[in-house]
Amino acid sequence: MLRVGIVGGSGYTGSELIRLLVMHPEQVELVCVTSRSLAGQRVSHVLPNLRGLVDLTFENPDIEKIAGETDIVFLGLPHKFAMAFAPGFLDLGVKVIDFSADYLFKDVNFYEKWYQKHTSPHLLAEAVYGLPELHRAEIREASLVANPGCYPTGAIFALLPALESGVVETDGIIVDSKTGISGAGRTPSATTHFPNRYENFTAYKIGEHRHAPEMEQELGEAIGKGVSLCFVPHLVPMTRGILTTAYLKLSKSVSTKELLEIYSRRYEGEPFVRVLDEGEIPQTQAVRGSNFCDVGVKVLAERNLAVVVSAIDNLTKGASGAALQNMNILAGFDETAGLLSPGLMP
Amino acid sequence: MLRVGIVGGSGYTGSELIRLLVMHPEQVELVCVTSRSLAGQRVSHVLPNLRGLVDLTFENPDIEKIAGETDIVFLGLPHKFAMAFAPGFLDLGVKVIDFSADYLFKDVNFYEKWYQKHTSPHLLAEAVYGLPELHRAEIREASLVANPGCYPTGAIFALLPALESGVVETDGIIVDSKTGISGAGRTPSATTHFPNRYENFTAYKIGEHRHAPEMEQELGEAIGKGVSLCFVPHLVPMTRGILTTAYLKLSKSVSTKELLEIYSRRYEGEPFVRVLDEGEIPQTQAVRGSNFCDVGVKVLAERNLAVVVSAIDNLTKGASGAALQNMNILAGFDETAGLLSPGLMP
Amino acid sequence: MLRVGIVGGSGYTGSELIRLLVMHPEQVELVCVTSRSLAGQRVSHVLPNLRGLVDLTFENPDIEKIAGETDIVFLGLPHKFAMAFAPGFLDLGVKVIDFSADYLFKDVNFYEKWYQKHTSPHLLAEAVYGLPELHRAEIREASLVANPGCYPTGAIFALLPALESGVVETDGIIVDSKTGISGAGRTPSATTHFPNRYENFTAYKIGEHRHAPEMEQELGEAIGKGVSLCFVPHLVPMTRGILTTAYLKLSKSVSTKELLEIYSRRYEGEPFVRVLDEGEIPQTQAVRGSNFCDVGVKVLAERNLAVVVSAIDNLTKGASGAALQNMNILAGFDETAGLLSPGLMP
Amino acid sequence: MLRVGIVGGSGYTGSELIRLLVMHPEQVELVCVTSRSLAGQRVSHVLPNLRGLVDLTFENPDIEKIAGETDIVFLGLPHKFAMAFAPGFLDLGVKVIDFSADYLFKDVNFYEKWYQKHTSPHLLAEAVYGLPELHRAEIREASLVANPGCYPTGAIFALLPALESGVVETDGIIVDSKTGISGAGRTPSATTHFPNRYENFTAYKIGEHRHAPEMEQELGEAIGKGVSLCFVPHLVPMTRGILTTAYLKLSKSVSTKELLEIYSRRYEGEPFVRVLDEGEIPQTQAVRGSNFCDVGVKVLAERNLAVVVSAIDNLTKGASGAALQNMNILAGFDETAGLLSPGLMP
Repeated sequence: MLRVGIVGGSGYTGSELIRLLVMHPEQVELVCVTSRSLAGQRVSHVLPNLRGLVDLTFENPDIEKIAGETDIVFLGLPHKFAMAFAPGFLDLGVKVIDFSADYLFKDVNFYEKWYQKHTSPHLLAEAVYGLPELHRAEIREASLVANPGCYPTGAIFALLPALESGVVETDGIIVDSKTGISGAGRTPSATTHFPNRYENFTAYKIGEHRHAPEMEQELGEAIGKGVSLCFVPHLVPMTRGILTTAYLKLSKSVSTKELLEIYSRRYEGEPFVRVLDEGEIPQTQAVRGSNFCDVGVKVLAERNLAVVVSAIDNLTKGASGAALQNMNILAGFDETAGLLSPGLMP
Repeated sequence: MLRVGIVGGSGYTGSELIRLLVMHPEQVELVCVTSRSLAGQRVSHVLPNLRGLVDLTFENPDIEKIAGETDIVFLGLPHKFAMAFAPGFLDLGVKVIDFSADYLFKDVNFYEKWYQKHTSPHLLAEAVYGLPELHRAEIREASLVANPGCYPTGAIFALLPALESGVVETDGIIVDSKTGISGAGRTPSATTHFPNRYENFTAYKIGEHRHAPEMEQELGEAIGKGVSLCFVPHLVPMTRGILTTAYLKLSKSVSTKELLEIYSRRYEGEPFVRVLDEGEIPQTQAVRGSNFCDVGVKVLAERNLAVVVSAIDNLTKGASGAALQNMNILAGFDETAGLLSPGLMP
Repeated sequence: MLRVGIVGGSGYTGSELIRLLVMHPEQVELVCVTSRSLAGQRVSHVLPNLRGLVDLTFENPDIEKIAGETDIVFLGLPHKFAMAFAPGFLDLGVKVIDFSADYLFKDVNFYEKWYQKHTSPHLLAEAVYGLPELHRAEIREASLVANPGCYPTGAIFALLPALESGVVETDGIIVDSKTGISGAGRTPSATTHFPNRYENFTAYKIGEHRHAPEMEQELGEAIGKGVSLCFVPHLVPMTRGILTTAYLKLSKSVSTKELLEIYSRRYEGEPFVRVLDEGEIPQTQAVRGSNFCDVGVKVLAERNLAVVVSAIDNLTKGASGAALQNMNILAGFDETAGLLSPGLMP
Repeated sequence: MLRVGIVGGSGYTGSELIRLLVMHPEQVELVCVTSRSLAGQRVSHVLPNLRGLVDLTFENPDIEKIAGETDIVFLGLPHKFAMAFAPGFLDLGVKVIDFSADYLFKDVNFYEKWYQKHTSPHLLAEAVYGLPELHRAEIREASLVANPGCYPTGAIFALLPALESGVVETDGIIVDSKTGISGAGRTPSATTHFPNRYENFTAYKIGEHRHAPEMEQELGEAIGKGVSLCFVPHLVPMTRGILTTAYLKLSKSVSTKELLEIYSRRYEGEPFVRVLDEGEIPQTQAVRGSNFCDVGVKVLAERNLAVVVSAIDNLTKGASGAALQNMNILAGFDETAGLLSPGLMP
């Protein structure tokens, strides 16, 4: 029996994780969910979809207590707060899967440029970027898994095979992403205010979103060469889903069919990445609530461009589904356990 | 030239009022908009739809200053705050159109039961309930107009002719209303958080919403007899619109055609109430952004019931359009000036 | 190994059934899905959420062939077409779960009044109304299960305990329901045209929807006494979910707490009906994509009314989830097998 | 008094045009609206937002009759059908504003490559591309105005000043556009089926949409040099609005401030193009239902890129508002007459 806990469980990563754990077929027990703001409230009261399925109460976080009753903890805390907890759990022998940005970067300067002073930089070297499709073997041995950001997940799946194969240039890449509003989290704000988003579409943080350096780090490391991309995120009036449209300049002449083969070969055996047939284009609804990432490819020869589109659910493959996938790997379960539900369509 | 001001202009009543004033064909000048929280910010920065159309800056409210430059002020403040301003403006000879609940009730006990202690109860007698379809003559002479609530507007239009005509019973009435989310105002909250509302539908405040006594007061006064109704509001995942489905027990046998005639006769000459033909059912989109109220009627003889459906835009006929209609009456303009735009469909 | 087939699998009942079967933990094999219009197309091409999970091709319906390879067939055909298939399968020893209205009514005259001439009226007596919460024992022995309509499912769960207990009157009931657009099926029409529904809310078929007699039949049979209700459906701009607000006149004085106890007792042991605590109100999102029905109750003593609200997913508990529940019963599986996924929230 | 008619008035261009004409302050009379499919039906029955505002009945198109009673006709017909009507009206002295693609291209080969055989190629030379911001003087003298496509309108406003100024390269341009579903027209289809679009986001016609050559023609002509762009449209789950995100490679070093000045200067005096301040980003809601185009600019120096975002309402500035603007010019009215309504926000 694997015992897990969620520290910082009041956000969407927490609720999605609980939803997925409820459906997990293996011997996993969720023993605690913490939230300072919700402490004392029943989980199924706050999350009525879980009524009758989860019998837990939000509690205040207590590292020692939780370490005594869990094998793995998920940290659903904002960056800065995560690094206040992770070292403690690791010291007590509990493995950590962290949703924050605190352990995503290899280079502490990088982190400190985009975020703030790091309080446990010594852990950056041992932390593993939790994208199994890139780092499966390291995750298996890891104690600290840094769960990828939602945009980077969609972008990396769109860009990786083309970059690895060398048929596209490594600079001048455009990543135009569109996200559902749940990406902004559970805390109400003007950005998430229903009338501000309904029948509205806009861009934000043009070229300055912190997920861009995360993409560049992972892609650069994967191909052993610097990658330069322009990332522009947009807000879609829907709750779940990220569609990423990536534009890559061809450095070699390839057809759509050939590029599709490159993608198919790269993702062969990957249980959650589905390369669509020629002419098919991903849509977010096909992966809604699921751990799949759909990828479609089209070469525009006369423009010397490859256009690659990927779709994920930002809360599932973009967050909690990936975390559960990492948990499965850490625990030695089948990597797909509890994660093969089809998207909710329509 | 009519000079008007908006005190408490940061909410949706304020922004909708400015939108409508911009399109007003008569000599009306909006001379100031106040908001403590937005003071110093340009109106067209906060409300980018007004860019190039409005050249004003939100300012702090100053009764004396505003009174010196306006003929009419709109109070877009929450209840309790409105009654802190209204007496001052009235004393200085400025007419007031108030969006709050502070002057809606004739009986101060009634107000104090549902809201709080009233600080200017002497004004309740002179305040006029600002539904021109009920109180046109009094509004013309008024200094203080209490602008109706959004739900009461939709419900009164649905119920009034049937009750006045005596073909239905005055008790056991069911008013099942459905509102867009803008009804909850501009302040973000869990209720208005996009992911909480999108693909979601629910009821709230079952039988205990404060708009119910407002409906009962006005309908009761109109027919000179107490009216008893059960009011249940619901939240629709859309921004604008209220659809009200009302169920009335027949006290006399009438056909749909006969009841439609009663409605048509009652609303004959009313520029903003449109009685639909037999078989047609109102829909909120047909009145979106407009000052119209559409009403449809159906008698279910075998159930001894009349079902009446009304549709309004909660921000327009349900709030700021009605306020402008009141302003037109107060100023001696054509009552429809600036208010005959069709609904935005689709 | 249970072998099942879907005849008429191109609609939403078909796609939802496949989605649920994919997640079913027992030995169930979906051996065929038919659709004349999609014959020859891969299921995972038409339904891209199923890519990688289902390896079937839509085929033309052939009763003999299908009967030879299945134990149970689901008929996802429109009414009239279902009765062209059901007798054939039954004759060949295959059990039938029918989504149409063809076998819902006990009284053939009733059916023929609302639908058309019945071509296999002799089967009406043996068909069982497939709501396990009403007819579990009979379903277990049935060959032909008539799967309930979506609105009746929501309404029956809202009304049943109150009616059975005798604390409410059996006439004058108001059932005001609100449905997501998927209830209109997969075929595009003006009603389902996105711009016609987005930011729009309306009622339809006021007092004349064919689901009303279905409700009256089942409720009347359950309490051994005629029930009379007025049913008005509405269209909500969302895809999934039905919220039903029911208004019942009290015949005895009960408190909310007492009525809640009546509901809790009635649904004790029912795995899919969740009675909410006092003060809680169902919302469709909490059951989205799930087989649960949430029920909330409030007594308005001063109005002499009980207001009961229920929420279901029209495609799951309102259609394919219920069908799978029936399949589990027929097959002797745990009734909840594959059906305990929480709602997708947010 | 200007007399106008709409031929092919059953689509969204027709309904939006009528909505705008109803609000037009000048002496314009809409004398007829034709539609073969709706002939005999009242306009206000089909378009209930117009109830009480428009007293017309859809009629069958009759060129001679209409020519006798109108000065200008709008052709709201699909391409191919428009060119069956335009020559007739022109011969009879009626000016034509055409919504189809039939007269958009100067080069008949171009048209015939993307569409079909042209039946009145002699008119291509005299037709004027109806974007006043590019061709105001020619429109004033024109008899045949080809109203621009919705995507080209948004894209041209985003790209034009940068290209004209020479600070960006003329090839390698990426135009990533996102449209509301009304862009697909009034005819129901799988693409516009509500459940297919709600909580869904996807791309379509990647690099092969027919609006791309239209953009290239107009931009190329404007700068006297070929322009090459990759255009990818996307479907947003909303009804109205197009947001275009354009990526341009800098050929000279400019700051955001400098590029903004280029844009501001170019659009100075243009009543409908609003250049936003540094740091502001357009959003579709700010122009919903209005004739404005909002443009925002950002230079990413380290990427050597300019990102320009524009927002329009596809039915207004992207179609019928532009047509009315053209009508105003043709008729000698103030170009902004009836077109300065603010966007419907929220």
